[in-house]
Amino acid sequence: MEQKQTINFGAGPAKLPQSVLLQAQKELINYSGIGISVLEMSHRSSDFNKILNTTENLLRELLNIPANYKVLFLQGGGSAQFSAVPFNLIGLKEDKCADYIVTGIWSSKAAKEAEKYGKINIVHPKQDSYTKIPDPSSWTLNPTASYVYYCCNETVHGVEYNFVPDTKGVVLVSDMSSNFLSRPVDVSKYGLIFAGAQKNVGCAGVTVVIVREDLLGHSLKECPIVLDYKVQAETNSLYNTPPCFSIYIMGLVLEWIKNNGATAAMEALNKQKSSLIYDIINASNGFYVCPVDMACQSRMNVPFRVGKKDGDEALEKKFLDGASKRGMISLKGHRSCGGIRASLYNAVTVDDARALAIYMKEFLKEHQ
Amino acid sequence: MEQKQTINFGAGPAKLPQSVLLQAQKELINYSGIGISVLEMSHRSSDFNKILNTTENLLRELLNIPANYKVLFLQGGGSAQFSAVPFNLIGLKEDKCADYIVTGIWSSKAAKEAEKYGKINIVHPKQDSYTKIPDPSSWTLNPTASYVYYCCNETVHGVEYNFVPDTKGVVLVSDMSSNFLSRPVDVSKYGLIFAGAQKNVGCAGVTVVIVREDLLGHSLKECPIVLDYKVQAETNSLYNTPPCFSIYIMGLVLEWIKNNGATAAMEALNKQKSSLIYDIINASNGFYVCPVDMACQSRMNVPFRVGKKDGDEALEKKFLDGASKRGMISLKGHRSCGGIRASLYNAVTVDDARALAIYMKEFLKEHQ
Repeated sequence: MEQKQTINFGAGPAKLPQSVLLQAQKELINYSGIGISVLEMSHRSSDFNKILNTTENLLRELLNIPANYKVLFLQGGGSAQFSAVPFNLIGLKEDKCADYIVTGIWSSKAAKEAEKYGKINIVHPKQDSYTKIPDPSSWTLNPTASYVYYCCNETVHGVEYNFVPDTKGVVLVSDMSSNFLSRPVDVSKYGLIFAGAQKNVGCAGVTVVIVREDLLGHSLKECPIVLDYKVQAETNSLYNTPPCFSIYIMGLVLEWIKNNGATAAMEALNKQKSSLIYDIINASNGFYVCPVDMACQSRMNVPFRVGKKDGDEALEKKFLDGASKRGMISLKGHRSCGGIRASLYNAVTVDDARALAIYMKEFLKEHQ
Repeated sequence: MEQKQTINFGAGPAKLPQSVLLQAQKELINYSGIGISVLEMSHRSSDFNKILNTTENLLRELLNIPANYKVLFLQGGGSAQFSAVPFNLIGLKEDKCADYIVTGIWSSKAAKEAEKYGKINIVHPKQDSYTKIPDPSSWTLNPTASYVYYCCNETVHGVEYNFVPDTKGVVLVSDMSSNFLSRPVDVSKYGLIFAGAQKNVGCAGVTVVIVREDLLGHSLKECPIVLDYKVQAETNSLYNTPPCFSIYIMGLVLEWIKNNGATAAMEALNKQKSSLIYDIINASNGFYVCPVDMACQSRMNVPFRVGKKDGDEALEKKFLDGASKRGMISLKGHRSCGGIRASLYNAVTVDDARALAIYMKEFLKEHQ
């Protein structure tokens, strides 16, 4: 019997390239002929050190990371960084305050967590809904802020920046968890970038932090040692046992990205995939509705309602059931938004996106 | 050509049962016929929920965990718990102080980290070396302490408790990272137990916390949200994306422990394995020297010097080279101690320990 193909549109943890899974499977019991699994490997061994260094070097190459930036592999996900960023950076200036741009759930959570550690200023008027990026001309940036924080792609709401905020010289911090390596980035414009791996670059359990060296060494005294960037930088992310297997998987994914044309190719493919979906939404005469402003519609996460602006729940259930019958999984919108969300990370192929597009057209024809 | 067998005596990450690796390999690409890998699985999916619940239930069964204890699966390793314990528990009483028993590097690090958050009292006179547990009659316990902390097995120094400290009613906290599930434990005697998985129960990336319900809700306001036990308990360890694959591997290892006679059988085997090594040390007329007091020699980590009390470095190098030729790896002592360390966690078999014992006898005969 032919196995039905599963197409994973999950928001994270998300689809991994098939070649990565095959390689991980092949060497799961005996890595590189050394007789043990990466799962069993001492983090102080030369074999693991090679994995760690290879992964870091691939990342440096793919993002053209300047030499005065450290690359860290930490635990705790993006949410741990919501604390780590203020723990490490809010003390950069004596006012201990920071500016936050809030465009969705994730930047909102980051701002709330940061309030534990300093004075947090939301730089724009409160938004009614997370469907746009407040016009930069409306931002009130504080020149004495230690840093300006934003979330480059809001996974839940599908709001993505296609520009780098101008902070008038203040250190810029970005959560790139859900669009990391989906396009080229000029790292030199940032003081710090972090990203959970489980969307575009691996599995859950490891978070990358890229931080400019001169920002290290200013942590608050209450900073947990595992979240202290300086400690982790000085020990090459080996202050304590790192999430070895997740780092190994990230290395395999980065190699796959490199072998498939690097960030420029990822960007072209991500444009193409997301256009396939947005084009159908836009041509559906309001049958499919994406609530997000055109200017900041995400290439990574496409949220939409079915039937009408606020969604026809029965129709949306039917849509999800039909998708499921076609092997398409994890299309349900985030519980806070409802509706549908298609996540189109690097490992999702153009064919995968096309299959969804075809289904959306058929469903439209049938139910319009 | 026959593949030389590798025997992994690593201190962690450490050997995993072969059957666990085989199962993980088998289902790496297609878990349970659902068409995707655990590495790609949404942490909010019913499939992952089943993995999480199965893992928790196995743990509850194997340790007979009372119903009024929560089981959490967190990130950051034991070192994150060095911060999390005081963040969550030092506020239990208004003095914000805690008692620490320091018997090796790990409890020493835990005490130092805790000083960031309250008043820390080392309950016994400072030790010259980490080779014994200070006699409980010499402990000065503080009745107003929020908790008493100890490390049940010091991985680096090979010092293991074979008794539960009497705290005169104060909440007891234990780091059981390196002897977790190696023997039965009466959980009801503890307020909190934590353990990194990468020694006896899985791979790196996940740490188990078992905490009594009534201790939740007292965290300091600076506690990072991902380290807040109450938040993690209320969300069933799903406040944010957990280390899914590491939890899955832990589930497989717990099943293996259950199928192999549970903690009672593990204890019997661990006694047998460690006796094989200690017996040779004790019968070697000072050729092999374990610096640890008989009463607290660890069944998990056996540190010893070769040639003389403080070790003959040339002989120790020879010993490691010979071991390596026999496929025995990761026997080098911790960099702070030198010498040799054999770690004999659950997945290390009696045959593995016997192979080491035979080699030690041969080496002794040749070099005595």
